[in-house]
Amino acid sequence: MIRPSADNFTWHGVDIHPYKEDGGTHFKSITRQTLAPAEHDLPVELRYFEMAADGYSTMERHDHSHLVMIIRGSGEVMVGDTVTEVGVHDVVRIPPQTWHQFRATKGTEFGFLCVVNEERDRPHRPTEEEVAELRQHPVVGTFFKV
Amino acid sequence: MIRPSADNFTWHGVDIHPYKEDGGTHFKSITRQTLAPAEHDLPVELRYFEMAADGYSTMERHDHSHLVMIIRGSGEVMVGDTVTEVGVHDVVRIPPQTWHQFRATKGTEFGFLCVVNEERDRPHRPTEEEVAELRQHPVVGTFFKV
Repeated sequence: MIRPSADNFTWHGVDIHPYKEDGGTHFKSITRQTLAPAEHDLPVELRYFEMAADGYSTMERHDHSHLVMIIRGSGEVMVGDTVTEVGVHDVVRIPPQTWHQFRATKGTEFGFLCVVNEERDRPHRPTEEEVAELRQHPVVGTFFKV
Repeated sequence: MIRPSADNFTWHGVDIHPYKEDGGTHFKSITRQTLAPAEHDLPVELRYFEMAADGYSTMERHDHSHLVMIIRGSGEVMVGDTVTEVGVHDVVRIPPQTWHQFRATKGTEFGFLCVVNEERDRPHRPTEEEVAELRQHPVVGTFFKV
């Protein structure tokens, strides 16, 4: 049993980690908590990510997929060539090899659960050439931060 | 993308099913919604179960495990030989072959997300002999409904 603290978005006995251990400037004001490791017949981890206002996750893609449910606040998510406003209890899939980025663009915290396979490949960030091409896109071109 | 309706606990395009298709009197006032099927590299389904006040799930066990997060109201859960009050954002594991039952004992709706493997065995309910033995237990004996 893992219980939330009074704020309901941190959990007793769960460490609050930086979003990525290796640092970087390609994300902002975002933390990671692992609520459940892979166990028994479930080869997936359950994590909770939270951005402060104006925060964002890394714009990246990878072979593995994400299953996400927003549980705090609201924001926007880029998935492939779409940008969508999302809020509490929206369910979002990030398919394999699809560029994606979460941004807390609504002036509030933006937090979501993320289910991911325990065995997964490393994410790739866009190359300079890919960034240049993606910047030309009429929808996502002005959205993403790198 | 799956979006909740105005009540935040039903989702557009997601059917509200009876808890179990085969009926029965071993559960009460509980519905099931499948928010995400197994896809890509995630062999798990994400479901949302909700009980009305006084509802309960079937008391059962099985080889597969559950990973649960409460997202609405509060209630109690029996896991093995324990009974615990749970509320929003508590995370509960149901290990394999562990008797368990969720009950909405707090006079309100009680709703939770449940991650489960898409391939799983059928649950078993306790036999009359098992019920008789479990009824002797000092903690769970008076808790569960069959």
